[in-house]
Amino acid sequence: MSYFNQIDKVKFEGKRSENPYAFKFYNPEEQIGGKSMKEILRYGVAYWHTFTGDGSDPFGKGTAKRPWDHLSGMDQAKARVEAAFEFFEKIDAPFFCFHDVDVAPEGSTMRETNKNLDEITAMIQEYMKTSNTKLLWNTANNFTNPRFTHGAGTSSHADVYAIAAAKIKKGLEVGKELGAENYVFWGGREGYETLLNTNMKLEQDNLARLYHMAIDYAKEIGFDAQFLIEPKPKEPTTHQYDFDVATATAFLYQHGLQDHFKFNIEANHATLAGHTFEHELRTAREMGMLGSVDANQGDLLLGWDTDEFPTDLYATTLGMYEILKNGGLGRGGLNFDAKVRRGSFETEDLFHSHIAGMDAFAVGLKVAQKMIDDQFFENILDKRYETFTTGIGKKIVTGTTSLKELENHALDIKEVDLKSGQLEKIKARINQYLLTMD
Amino acid sequence: MSYFNQIDKVKFEGKRSENPYAFKFYNPEEQIGGKSMKEILRYGVAYWHTFTGDGSDPFGKGTAKRPWDHLSGMDQAKARVEAAFEFFEKIDAPFFCFHDVDVAPEGSTMRETNKNLDEITAMIQEYMKTSNTKLLWNTANNFTNPRFTHGAGTSSHADVYAIAAAKIKKGLEVGKELGAENYVFWGGREGYETLLNTNMKLEQDNLARLYHMAIDYAKEIGFDAQFLIEPKPKEPTTHQYDFDVATATAFLYQHGLQDHFKFNIEANHATLAGHTFEHELRTAREMGMLGSVDANQGDLLLGWDTDEFPTDLYATTLGMYEILKNGGLGRGGLNFDAKVRRGSFETEDLFHSHIAGMDAFAVGLKVAQKMIDDQFFENILDKRYETFTTGIGKKIVTGTTSLKELENHALDIKEVDLKSGQLEKIKARINQYLLTMD
Amino acid sequence: MSYFNQIDKVKFEGKRSENPYAFKFYNPEEQIGGKSMKEILRYGVAYWHTFTGDGSDPFGKGTAKRPWDHLSGMDQAKARVEAAFEFFEKIDAPFFCFHDVDVAPEGSTMRETNKNLDEITAMIQEYMKTSNTKLLWNTANNFTNPRFTHGAGTSSHADVYAIAAAKIKKGLEVGKELGAENYVFWGGREGYETLLNTNMKLEQDNLARLYHMAIDYAKEIGFDAQFLIEPKPKEPTTHQYDFDVATATAFLYQHGLQDHFKFNIEANHATLAGHTFEHELRTAREMGMLGSVDANQGDLLLGWDTDEFPTDLYATTLGMYEILKNGGLGRGGLNFDAKVRRGSFETEDLFHSHIAGMDAFAVGLKVAQKMIDDQFFENILDKRYETFTTGIGKKIVTGTTSLKELENHALDIKEVDLKSGQLEKIKARINQYLLTMD
Amino acid sequence: MSYFNQIDKVKFEGKRSENPYAFKFYNPEEQIGGKSMKEILRYGVAYWHTFTGDGSDPFGKGTAKRPWDHLSGMDQAKARVEAAFEFFEKIDAPFFCFHDVDVAPEGSTMRETNKNLDEITAMIQEYMKTSNTKLLWNTANNFTNPRFTHGAGTSSHADVYAIAAAKIKKGLEVGKELGAENYVFWGGREGYETLLNTNMKLEQDNLARLYHMAIDYAKEIGFDAQFLIEPKPKEPTTHQYDFDVATATAFLYQHGLQDHFKFNIEANHATLAGHTFEHELRTAREMGMLGSVDANQGDLLLGWDTDEFPTDLYATTLGMYEILKNGGLGRGGLNFDAKVRRGSFETEDLFHSHIAGMDAFAVGLKVAQKMIDDQFFENILDKRYETFTTGIGKKIVTGTTSLKELENHALDIKEVDLKSGQLEKIKARINQYLLTMD
Ligand SMILES: [Co+2]
Ligand SMILES: [Co+2]
Ligand SMILES: [Co+2]
Ligand SMILES: [Co+2]
Ligand SMILES: [Co+2]
Ligand SMILES: [Co+2]
Ligand SMILES: [Co+2]
Ligand SMILES: [Co+2]
Repeated sequence: MSYFNQIDKVKFEGKRSENPYAFKFYNPEEQIGGKSMKEILRYGVAYWHTFTGDGSDPFGKGTAKRPWDHLSGMDQAKARVEAAFEFFEKIDAPFFCFHDVDVAPEGSTMRETNKNLDEITAMIQEYMKTSNTKLLWNTANNFTNPRFTHGAGTSSHADVYAIAAAKIKKGLEVGKELGAENYVFWGGREGYETLLNTNMKLEQDNLARLYHMAIDYAKEIGFDAQFLIEPKPKEPTTHQYDFDVATATAFLYQHGLQDHFKFNIEANHATLAGHTFEHELRTAREMGMLGSVDANQGDLLLGWDTDEFPTDLYATTLGMYEILKNGGLGRGGLNFDAKVRRGSFETEDLFHSHIAGMDAFAVGLKVAQKMIDDQFFENILDKRYETFTTGIGKKIVTGTTSLKELENHALDIKEVDLKSGQLEKIKARINQYLLTMD
Repeated sequence: MSYFNQIDKVKFEGKRSENPYAFKFYNPEEQIGGKSMKEILRYGVAYWHTFTGDGSDPFGKGTAKRPWDHLSGMDQAKARVEAAFEFFEKIDAPFFCFHDVDVAPEGSTMRETNKNLDEITAMIQEYMKTSNTKLLWNTANNFTNPRFTHGAGTSSHADVYAIAAAKIKKGLEVGKELGAENYVFWGGREGYETLLNTNMKLEQDNLARLYHMAIDYAKEIGFDAQFLIEPKPKEPTTHQYDFDVATATAFLYQHGLQDHFKFNIEANHATLAGHTFEHELRTAREMGMLGSVDANQGDLLLGWDTDEFPTDLYATTLGMYEILKNGGLGRGGLNFDAKVRRGSFETEDLFHSHIAGMDAFAVGLKVAQKMIDDQFFENILDKRYETFTTGIGKKIVTGTTSLKELENHALDIKEVDLKSGQLEKIKARINQYLLTMD
Repeated sequence: MSYFNQIDKVKFEGKRSENPYAFKFYNPEEQIGGKSMKEILRYGVAYWHTFTGDGSDPFGKGTAKRPWDHLSGMDQAKARVEAAFEFFEKIDAPFFCFHDVDVAPEGSTMRETNKNLDEITAMIQEYMKTSNTKLLWNTANNFTNPRFTHGAGTSSHADVYAIAAAKIKKGLEVGKELGAENYVFWGGREGYETLLNTNMKLEQDNLARLYHMAIDYAKEIGFDAQFLIEPKPKEPTTHQYDFDVATATAFLYQHGLQDHFKFNIEANHATLAGHTFEHELRTAREMGMLGSVDANQGDLLLGWDTDEFPTDLYATTLGMYEILKNGGLGRGGLNFDAKVRRGSFETEDLFHSHIAGMDAFAVGLKVAQKMIDDQFFENILDKRYETFTTGIGKKIVTGTTSLKELENHALDIKEVDLKSGQLEKIKARINQYLLTMD
Repeated sequence: MSYFNQIDKVKFEGKRSENPYAFKFYNPEEQIGGKSMKEILRYGVAYWHTFTGDGSDPFGKGTAKRPWDHLSGMDQAKARVEAAFEFFEKIDAPFFCFHDVDVAPEGSTMRETNKNLDEITAMIQEYMKTSNTKLLWNTANNFTNPRFTHGAGTSSHADVYAIAAAKIKKGLEVGKELGAENYVFWGGREGYETLLNTNMKLEQDNLARLYHMAIDYAKEIGFDAQFLIEPKPKEPTTHQYDFDVATATAFLYQHGLQDHFKFNIEANHATLAGHTFEHELRTAREMGMLGSVDANQGDLLLGWDTDEFPTDLYATTLGMYEILKNGGLGRGGLNFDAKVRRGSFETEDLFHSHIAGMDAFAVGLKVAQKMIDDQFFENILDKRYETFTTGIGKKIVTGTTSLKELENHALDIKEVDLKSGQLEKIKARINQYLLTMD
């Protein structure tokens, strides 16, 4: 059966198209800097928001109207798989992502849960044979079940830790089976609500031990996906341990894990932590740890993760600049970890929202590539830091000077020939790039 | 001459005293857990806020009325030294802290600046001979002078970097001369306003090189003070590189600097970064890197560093708990990096504010010690994490298990015997501790 | 049957009691300023958090363990009523509050819903005959049902508006039947997510019309409860129309409603709006519009309404100061619109949390009354504003001067004899009040 | 003499121009909806940021390099006037704005200050005779001088109030002399730091009395400018009385002032208060009180007023939409209350920044006009609220129904035919409008 039969496969129609079910900017086969848009952007559909989410919020019940609402249990799970692969095809998504509980209902024990999961995994595998859509990453949801109240890998209870570990083990196996490119560790409830009842050191050490065991097991079963940490602050625990890229980096170094992980960076998590999206991308990129992206956006006037579909062209442009400078995302991709608003409850809104996001990043890609072709930022930086290319500056960057020599250089300087940062001029130029994009 | 002759040496008079110039809770010689309050608390007066600050803000000129206002240049600098030592004695402060520019005016070159600094340093040294007040730490102000607009150790200009380095060199020499216990690196303008014109990697690598040179030079001159990094987010640059303890830790590890630094943790910087004061203390403590504290508080409804004198007894109690569990602050102390409000412009307010802060931390110390004596938190944690002391839990914490074994343990679990976190009960108990403090 | 038979009636045992099920500070019959604590504080239990809430959050299912979990539908609703009255009696609560859907399940039409509600209302009425607990206020939940996605009184659909109106009508009738002291209008989803699809004027005018109809109907049926507006910003809609007291005041004035409402002020809503709790209380008090209080507290490091039980003694003290200066709360009370943390999932935590809150406000009351007895703030203000009691100052406050006369007075002034605001001294004194409370 | 002789008059060169000193989008004479861009946009240059500001911040001294830096006192003041009119002409600004202290130095008494001001006013008047640039508004700076520490019209001291009143009187006279279109009241320090020492009612009543006197005096001297209130939260006092448009509206109503004021809405003040720019514009517009705009933007990741030049095209588009729907700004304008970044310290940056802002609002104007021509939002709203045009909906909006009738309508409704809000589709369409702007 068809779940979206009122909607045809979405195609590129150009920027003046008035067809709401067409791409205006995302042209999958268009070549940008020698690769097709599709190859560079590697879009992924997030199973949870698109097929499992119901639009509920802390103040109200779900509003989403979905063609699988009348079903339940495994029947509903199967209908969602069918719908998903139809959606992937119609929206032309090269990838998808899921948590275990998104695709299969939990049983009363892990054994039962795994049985459900096996059945759905087999079904997904069957669909993937004839689909162009691959698995960007999967993961274990170790936060929804009430038993994870006090965390999973950082739980205060050993049984909960064991269950979390078992779910990760299963996740790695499923990932291998479905050929996942990456495996994501989002902290879920790994953090604390209050130090008043928390042994932070024990919890963090336990978490590190869990990561080491996961690395060992993936190796053991020959699952070579890239491991990704997805930092997030403040939610759901008041203090998530993976606050941001830098915090997670410190954790990885302190526990000898830095060579085994890259980062999955979510735009809305960046801003919740007080950073721009591009700051987090840059921080990861400069360490060689930019792995993948959860492509969404937040509302900076609100204090929680709103997971909106990305439409801000400034963010997509600066984000794509970082990604292009990174040489692309490698095995990672742009996963739309984004949900339609509670008020956008119609099935059609799933299409509108993905089109909005895919077009927005396509624009970002085109503008960023143009700026790179023009060496726009590179020229600014070359000029700005040029004193470090000769003389004392060169000695500084090559580590061949000392406080004494620098003092000697400095003692009688009266005026430094500083240059303006010209931020306003740069911002005007970026607007011009945007508005003259072909 | 006397600058504060209307005010006598401040003494402890007990909690019901109505004398505004008396301590109500800080009793320097009172023994707490085997040490005197004075030994544990190691209060420091911040020279900049107390002797240099004028109460100006971005919307208005200075309001402070100070007995040295009629002077200028070196005369004013000398008067401030005299006043400072009188104040230290009257408030009974065991320590003080300063930046170079707080104590001596800048000249038109570093050579002239150093000359001024030498003269004042000699004067301070002379005063210290007969004073009980020691130097907790000194540092170089590498942010006020317009030349530091684009940073100092992360400046885009090599000359500025050289000047910053020269100032640090001088700071280390002055610290050695005055017997400083620590040397602080607060990032000043080390950060960026916008990635649009910033080479983050070059800037951060340069900063690391500067730290390495400082370590080498301190060693060379035999200055054995503890080096401290003081993290701060958002101000004055939009993105300070030392956002918080975790961020600075990642930086230290990535540049091989982790063994050379501890942290100077400021309460208001913690909250600006989205953390509690105690979170930052705990994070540093668990790494063995809790060095010193900038004892102040912020206004959480405002988005900048207000540097208020600390009066919140919850923060001082939880802060002192971390410090006591750390075995004290070692060579560090509690430096009042706090300024009287713009509206508290009278000289008397300098006394009121220090008394407020000293009393608040004294209360925190007493309550925290009582909780430790009672093993209040320890009992909560022991019970909460007890499943990690035997069986599978013990295997987890000793790193002697695997995903397979954990799965085996987990597969048929139906119900986990989770315990309530009891946060409300704990908070009520803390109020009770506070209100029954003897 | 008993739902809490392991717990006895909670009694006052004094500040050194180690019984977790005893009040340490709340002594119902203790006289404070001529009235009993119980009379002044007028505590209310919030039915939704205590009997309906399940501890779920946006990232996970409910955790609460309640003795009525095995029931459903009307059976569960009835069990909750029984449990509630047992709880009221054991915690010694003079009041309770509820929304329609808290007490009775919704049917498929309003007609069916009202039938359920009638049955439960009758049962509550029966229980109230032998109970000491009265109804502080009731209200209609016009936000949980999916049909309220786009608002209720501000819905974009007339049918939804009609349903909301019908629910309010029923709420007024139920309030009259149960002798409610107040009727609360919390905006629920009255606001907008985005102006991009919102007719703000139409929505606000419709809301005003609904209030006018409610006033008329209450009059018609002789229901004389005080009408209260509870302002809240940001949640659940991005821009709630009743952002704070001032915003709601502007709305009331513009629609001729100002004489018909007072405010129900929630502490956590105040801080979410960028204000202190006491700011909102003061603003309402000075307009004669302080009606009632939702006594809770938030986490200022988080950006949403955490609805924590109130334990911050600074907030309870300054809050009670405003309430005492208001001559008490009249027909209002202190309703604990607060929920136990998700991690505090045991039934016992319902007692711990209420005891924590009741003790905290009792301390606030005692300290505030002492400060009033001492005329602590009054003396500060008298001195601070004394120039307005004579001469030109008196002319200013009596409105008998002009710009010309004021210019005349001002033209040759050289120095104004300004007084320090002495904030640090005041804060130290408040700590002293707290720590010397008898 | 010329202050900017390296720069020619800035002209429109079209969107592909690579001349940094040309407008790319702002074409003054281009007709948009029947008026020229220049007539609609009514740009104003803010004297304080552009001619008086020095780039200092709380952590450092001024960095700006200006051709009048070598002068001081009245000589500098006069040089600034000369420079200003040269700048106005070169940037083609139809308006400018100033505070008294921006243009003339303060003396030791008001009498002396006024003398300085008179001399500069005369000079400005002379320049205006041959200039095309008019005075959008002027105002009195009642916050920079230390005497305003505790406020001006809300000061705790009557003499300060008198001085503030005298400055307003003078401001009205100067405004009349120079033909100002508006007179702005920005609250400056009208607010409080803490309720602990504040008589809020006295302060607010005094402020209202000052406004009444100002109204009377303007009438007396025949100064018919539009009076504007500029709301702002949080800075410099912790709680500014004019928090936002709604708060100021409540104040105006409560003091019978609502017919005498409109609002001057600053974008950065809106976001600091937790609102979007367009929310504040809409709120004022729907009350008929949208007077003028301070056109800037903030950094939503920072917690203070950064006063950046506006470059965000989403904000300028939605802002211009509100302005066009308002029928323009009447006597108001778009005043660039924006400062070049501290790091943009060259004189050239004054041009770059204004060009950036003028181009950004020109784009906003063009896109907004196109959306209005297409009835883009209007069509969305018509469809969304159509149930209010007939039947029970029509009765609701005409105020001809009752709770009883609405209940009757509602009692048996099973399903409401709600429509999706389609936010994602709308946002995608706005991007399309932006990227297809001609
Ligand atoms: Co994500
Ligand atoms: Co998210
Ligand atoms: Co500090
Ligand atoms: Co600080
Ligand atoms: Co409430
Ligand atoms: Co609430
Ligand atoms: Co402004
Ligand atoms: Co501003």
